[in-house]
Order: sequence, then structure tokens, then C-alpha cells
Amino acid sequence: MTLRGRKKGETVPKGVVFRLPIYFRYLTELQSQGVERISSAQLGEALDFTAAQIRSDLSYFGSFGQQGYGYNVTTLLGQVRNILGMSRDYAMVLIGAGNLGKAIGSYDWFRAQGFEIKAIFDIDPHLVGNFHGGCTIRPTSELGTYLEENPTDIGIIATPKDASQEMCDLLVQGGVRSIWNFSPTHLNVPASVIVEDMHLTDSLLRLAFRLHERSLKKQ
Amino acid sequence: MTLRGRKKGETVPKGVVFRLPIYFRYLTELQSQGVERISSAQLGEALDFTAAQIRSDLSYFGSFGQQGYGYNVTTLLGQVRNILGMSRDYAMVLIGAGNLGKAIGSYDWFRAQGFEIKAIFDIDPHLVGNFHGGCTIRPTSELGTYLEENPTDIGIIATPKDASQEMCDLLVQGGVRSIWNFSPTHLNVPASVIVEDMHLTDSLLRLAFRLHERSLKKQ
Repeated sequence: MTLRGRKKGETVPKGVVFRLPIYFRYLTELQSQGVERISSAQLGEALDFTAAQIRSDLSYFGSFGQQGYGYNVTTLLGQVRNILGMSRDYAMVLIGAGNLGKAIGSYDWFRAQGFEIKAIFDIDPHLVGNFHGGCTIRPTSELGTYLEENPTDIGIIATPKDASQEMCDLLVQGGVRSIWNFSPTHLNVPASVIVEDMHLTDSLLRLAFRLHERSLKKQ
Repeated sequence: MTLRGRKKGETVPKGVVFRLPIYFRYLTELQSQGVERISSAQLGEALDFTAAQIRSDLSYFGSFGQQGYGYNVTTLLGQVRNILGMSRDYAMVLIGAGNLGKAIGSYDWFRAQGFEIKAIFDIDPHLVGNFHGGCTIRPTSELGTYLEENPTDIGIIATPKDASQEMCDLLVQGGVRSIWNFSPTHLNVPASVIVEDMHLTDSLLRLAFRLHERSLKKQ
């Protein structure tokens, strides 16, 4: 794929990376509603971004809307999919089959978009052997052997905090280069490994902070 | 509470808001380990921020480490708690008692930190009446009446996408001013209402993008 508008190897700014999935989600909705064209002003209004920011983000990837005509939704969605790296499939393993793990394991969206949970692991003997999300839950003691035999792109950690670093180390030893971390702790990994944190607690604290800040302003 | 170092009503930059919960989480860990002092360099190394960034963030709230002595962990944690607005309790309701709702409802951490789920609602008659996380699950038809009688700070939406806007509207009509949204869609709310999105799909797409970007650089 050619990324017009940026040089090969150039890192995309965090702000743009943050907004790309939001574009993807909204364009998918528009497409399913049969909308064919959208202007940067309409996109901006729907997503609470400025039209200028949207034009800047999209031109960064070489997509230019036509004056008074806007963007073709299907073309733009295809470009955003390519930029996001969604033109290939990803093999995932899920570690932790508690409530949160079960919630993650039952998200149909992942599979539909090419992110497939191929195996689920848990340390709890009461959960091992149960069937969930198309997988039989395996004991974590088998994780190393599994990874040797099944190259895996993404390891999802949905264990309690105390177990997460150990599970992360097993994933890294098994050649997994991306960790999606739901446990509320900071994972230590080599520089070659990417960690994307999904901290529920951090998100709630940010919400509380914004609520608190509003109440201070009113005083 | 006095926020030295910033004017009353001044908005805290998004980057600082983003990092505050990370400080909170790590300082809580240090405190539980009995660590009394930490330098900005040590904090930086543990959290992958630069020492300069940490000094800048903390001085923003009027906390200054002593040269060659660092920060007192307990004092700093207390300041971060206050800044985050954690010196009060928050009443929450949870809408959606599927796997994800159950996972959210069973997070002991929330209650321990003053975020209490006071009621859980679901539209599914098979779930209504069940007991979860200390609450009996109520039908969503009772949400309006409940909110009239029970002032609520935060509404958590963990419903499928199709139901989320309707549930959001009910929360807003019921006087809820903060929405913690787990459904993979953009919610429309009045300017007086804060929405904090927790989009699993967006997080996974960001991870895929970073993995894809690395593979492009290697080519």
C-alpha cells in the first residue's frame, strides 16, 4: 500500500492514530445506512472535531475531498481500513476467562473485522475445559507450547493484576509482539513489543476528574 | 482545595488529564509496597515518561520535589487524589447486565475508591431480578423513576449499540451529568453532559495500526 502524503517509515502523530478508529467506526455506520458522500463539515459535526482537523487528518493519508462534493464514503472507508492495517487477519489469544475475558471473547465484531481469538487460557481449573466464544478454555500451563505451534499476533491479558506480568512474559517469550492489556497495571516489555492499555480505572478517573473540574468552575 | 500553580477555572490540558490516573495507579502501588520517597527520574523510568514531563505535570498542581530527595509518596498520592476529585463519593448506575456489564459490576476497585454502583438495569426479562455485584437487576422501564428518587452522578452504558442512545437520553433526562460509555458508538448529549468513551474496538484498532506501522517500517 502506498501512503501518499507521508514518507515511508514516518511515524503518524498520536492524535491522528487516536482519531483513525473513530473515523473507521463512523464511516462504517454511514456505509451501512447507504450514505454515499459526506463533507468534512458533516464529519466534523457528527464527531465533534473541526472540519479543518478532519481535512488535515485525511490529507495526511493522501485523501482529498472535492470542493462542494465531499468524500466518497466507501472509498474513504477503504483507505482508513488500509491505513489501519485491517486488510489482513490477526491471530489472537485471550488470557483470563473471568467476566471481563468472557465479555471480550463474545465480541462478534472482532472476528467480523479479522481479529480472531484462536485460544483462551485461564489458571482456574473450574473454568478450564469450558467452551466460550468458539474456544475450549485451556490451562495457562499450556500457553508456552501453544505459542510454539501457533504463531500469534496479539495477546489479550484479562487476568487479575497479580498474574498479568507473568502472563505477559510468557506471551513475549512465545514470540507475541503486541499485547492488549486489560489488567490495571503497567506491563514491562522489551522495546520490540507494543502494549496497548485498556485501563477501566483510568477511564473512570478521567471522567471523575472532568466532573470535579466542572463543579470547581461553578463555585 | 487550593490548586496552587493554576488559576481557578483554568482547564487542565488533555495530556495531563490523561496521565493523572497513571500517576494515581502507580503511587497507590508504591504506597502499598511501603515505598516512602520517589524521584522524578524513578517515576519516569517506571511509567515511560521523561523526568522533565513528570516535573512539569506535578508542578502544574503545585507539587515540587526536593532536589536530591524526591517526592513523598503519601503526600503526592493525596494531592493526586484531590486533584482527581476522589475526596468525595460518586453514585453510579449501570445499564446493561451482559458479560461486559457483569465485568464492570464486579470490579471491587470502584467501590473501594468511592465509585459505587447503586443500581443495575437491563431490558432482558431473563436477567431482571437476578442479583449481581450487590444489586438486584431492574428493568430499564424503571430507570426514569429510579433517577427521580436517587440523584446519580455517573451513568454507565454497557448495552448493545442499538440501545445506547435511548438509554443515554433517559439518563440525561434523569439529571445524570456524566456518562461512561462502553457501547461502540458516538453518543449525542447536551453540552452540559460529559461523555467518557471506553471503546474496546478503537483500542484494538490502535494496536493493529501500531503493529501494521512497524511491519511497514521493516519492509
